[in-house]
Amino acid sequence: MKRIDLNCDMGESFGHYQIGNDAAIMPLVSSCNIACGFHAGDPVVMDRTINLALEHKVQIGAHPAYPDLNGFGRRQMQIDPADLRHILKYQISALKGMVESYGARLAYVKPHGALYNTAAREETVAKAVADAVREIDEGLTLMGLAGSLVAAICEQTSIRFVAEAFADRRYRDNGSLCSRKAKGAVLDDPEEVAQQVLRMVLHEEVKTETGKIIPLQAQSFCIHGDNPTALDSLQAIHRILQEREIIVSAF
Amino acid sequence: MKRIDLNCDMGESFGHYQIGNDAAIMPLVSSCNIACGFHAGDPVVMDRTINLALEHKVQIGAHPAYPDLNGFGRRQMQIDPADLRHILKYQISALKGMVESYGARLAYVKPHGALYNTAAREETVAKAVADAVREIDEGLTLMGLAGSLVAAICEQTSIRFVAEAFADRRYRDNGSLCSRKAKGAVLDDPEEVAQQVLRMVLHEEVKTETGKIIPLQAQSFCIHGDNPTALDSLQAIHRILQEREIIVSAF
Amino acid sequence: MKRIDLNCDMGESFGHYQIGNDAAIMPLVSSCNIACGFHAGDPVVMDRTINLALEHKVQIGAHPAYPDLNGFGRRQMQIDPADLRHILKYQISALKGMVESYGARLAYVKPHGALYNTAAREETVAKAVADAVREIDEGLTLMGLAGSLVAAICEQTSIRFVAEAFADRRYRDNGSLCSRKAKGAVLDDPEEVAQQVLRMVLHEEVKTETGKIIPLQAQSFCIHGDNPTALDSLQAIHRILQEREIIVSAF
Amino acid sequence: MKRIDLNCDMGESFGHYQIGNDAAIMPLVSSCNIACGFHAGDPVVMDRTINLALEHKVQIGAHPAYPDLNGFGRRQMQIDPADLRHILKYQISALKGMVESYGARLAYVKPHGALYNTAAREETVAKAVADAVREIDEGLTLMGLAGSLVAAICEQTSIRFVAEAFADRRYRDNGSLCSRKAKGAVLDDPEEVAQQVLRMVLHEEVKTETGKIIPLQAQSFCIHGDNPTALDSLQAIHRILQEREIIVSAF
Repeated sequence: MKRIDLNCDMGESFGHYQIGNDAAIMPLVSSCNIACGFHAGDPVVMDRTINLALEHKVQIGAHPAYPDLNGFGRRQMQIDPADLRHILKYQISALKGMVESYGARLAYVKPHGALYNTAAREETVAKAVADAVREIDEGLTLMGLAGSLVAAICEQTSIRFVAEAFADRRYRDNGSLCSRKAKGAVLDDPEEVAQQVLRMVLHEEVKTETGKIIPLQAQSFCIHGDNPTALDSLQAIHRILQEREIIVSAF
Repeated sequence: MKRIDLNCDMGESFGHYQIGNDAAIMPLVSSCNIACGFHAGDPVVMDRTINLALEHKVQIGAHPAYPDLNGFGRRQMQIDPADLRHILKYQISALKGMVESYGARLAYVKPHGALYNTAAREETVAKAVADAVREIDEGLTLMGLAGSLVAAICEQTSIRFVAEAFADRRYRDNGSLCSRKAKGAVLDDPEEVAQQVLRMVLHEEVKTETGKIIPLQAQSFCIHGDNPTALDSLQAIHRILQEREIIVSAF
Repeated sequence: MKRIDLNCDMGESFGHYQIGNDAAIMPLVSSCNIACGFHAGDPVVMDRTINLALEHKVQIGAHPAYPDLNGFGRRQMQIDPADLRHILKYQISALKGMVESYGARLAYVKPHGALYNTAAREETVAKAVADAVREIDEGLTLMGLAGSLVAAICEQTSIRFVAEAFADRRYRDNGSLCSRKAKGAVLDDPEEVAQQVLRMVLHEEVKTETGKIIPLQAQSFCIHGDNPTALDSLQAIHRILQEREIIVSAF
Repeated sequence: MKRIDLNCDMGESFGHYQIGNDAAIMPLVSSCNIACGFHAGDPVVMDRTINLALEHKVQIGAHPAYPDLNGFGRRQMQIDPADLRHILKYQISALKGMVESYGARLAYVKPHGALYNTAAREETVAKAVADAVREIDEGLTLMGLAGSLVAAICEQTSIRFVAEAFADRRYRDNGSLCSRKAKGAVLDDPEEVAQQVLRMVLHEEVKTETGKIIPLQAQSFCIHGDNPTALDSLQAIHRILQEREIIVSAF
């Protein structure tokens, strides 16, 4: 029986500020990427999100980012790679210790936002991410963009890599994502999202913005929780997968 | 042969800002309290300080604080104790993971500044600190003011407590510290500092601001690294202890 | 014809984080208190809110706070009054300059959250607030809790004071507000809110949590924009005031 | 009689952290660039620095930066130019209001660090800086790199531009500065610094890292206050200028 992993960014609230719909979405994913306080999240939000994940037996990953709360980690920052490695080790450790305080385990690391995109194409940044993960715990998996540079970096080392694809984002012909700011870059029709996931799962391919079909091999599929249709999209994905007896479970 | 522990706050630089004289002081202490990024320190400074401690085989403790970089953690903040517990777990975990990435071990936790003082007298805060320490790792020791409330809280639980006394601070008759802002509150004559330590070690007592002698039992003695005479005071302490064949080593 | 001022805290979003319903509420108030980036708000949000206020010809006030984004300025902080004065001057100036860049005018200052409450009862804090306001611009009005210490401080000086009452908060018998955490502290029935305002306007009194009627003289009435029923309450207030031909306009 | 302006970055301390030697340097410059709290400085430091400038009758400029305290504003950040404009208006206004609270005047704006360098070569950033300055106060002067893009942008508009040269930095053949990280990029021999200034003043040229002489026209000359030899260099500059009866005074 085929199995796939569904992941979602979680714990991105901050203090009095609420983002996302974590309580509703958590039961529908198999992995959750918890913000570590640098682009979003704070210790109280992190604790609440860890508990929500444990309640629903959802696998926990760290979601570290550039230190940029006001820009939500989406602005590129030119940080020395050695410094970046420590910045990531700090964030991953903070979440890891909090997870372990409940007798649970941190399973993986997925960089956030501008860091995710930069790690997908710049070698020094990809290496800083991989090194941070390996130095904190060799058993941690690194999740990143399918087919990107960070995947290649992991292959050269001993780090397990999980390729990720986006259920609700439009792709370019070269396999990268259309910019968030471009019209139609975020899919908000639940059926279209579900069909995109199904095509990725069954045929290991995706239809791009130009209508071209390109290959795309992924083990985990991401839904953006701050999309207002995220809940509907997740339910549509579950329906379409159930019809094909494909099981949603953590990688 | 008698042994005592000497500790110092370390890693309190931040980005471009340098504080203290860590490289010179590290070889002269047996324990170092490393700032965790909330009142001082940042991931890069933390990594540098961990490496310095490992190089000199100095025992490492976490030095978490209120989230107040601009106030250096010295301003009282009314934080909900449950929130405070998570804020502390976050900081302790961050440092712990970074220390363990070098195959080393985090040995203890010493709260910083206003948090230290509040934990010494307010039960909800003392409990939040003790709970944070216990939840992260039952093997961690909590360091706090000798004879204070936090010591009593630890006795009720399974947490090991190490009582601390201040080598370079003046005491009040009630065993608390004179306010930093008061004249003469910080001792800057190395000989006087060394004599105060010796009296504490040999006789378990201290002379207060009024000249009174009060009992004071401590296992660790703190030197403030940002005091310009810190290095001279540490050398004076080492001399006076060597003459009595008292050994400086981690508790 | 009687006139009253309705005010609301605005511009409390931050980066990717949205709070309140400013676009819908702005047309219904005569004064808006704009956050200055220390408890909420950021330069981009401030600019957007200033423009919204100008579009609707709503009087603009600064809403400075303790430097505590994560606690939304609701946690008491023990800041030296001299330092606090500069912290407030900074925030007020930042907003003032941005308002004046549109050829408009900053009219008043209303402290936020824990600072508001502390200024209402502690003399050094009330004086720091009053001094900050006066030093930035003697023409600025200070808005604060009706009948509180800060009102008395203003009377001793040349600062114009506008007494504020809360449309949607329950009062204690001593004229202070019931704690936010207490049940029923925030009124969410629009009719009850409107009746409380009407009683305050017509009779200069308020019914407290115990049912007692106490005197309360105010020139401005606050609605909390983050209350889900804020919009309904404002509409109910407008209806009830229109029936009595009481006009809503800036003080 | 010839006159030149000497400027220095000031007020870059933060809370407990001290940087520079403002008290000693202030009497030796004619203009000071005061940090506005985003890369360095805080409201208390700003107030202290304003007072120091007023005491020595030194002209005051705002020194705004990217929002990056940990990176001291020296890391490039990809901020939307419209957002950047508001970020700069906020900082400039904050300082301006504090200066005016003493009956004094803010004279100019000089961007800091990575923002300074980016404004010198990227049109959208240069325009954002120029627009921010003009919107806050058309009377403000913009100080920037001599011969750079931001100078050209100012020429197209009504903003007065003051071209700056660096007394203590090595130049490349193309008129840009050698990277801070390169050996010899910062001049620390006071005589060499003084000679470089004199050549710039008398002959409007500078000798580059390759020994080539290139033209360089500047009205203000910058000394970096965090350079340990800054004080000696300033004294050497004053000596060499006095011999030629060149007067140091604000532009």
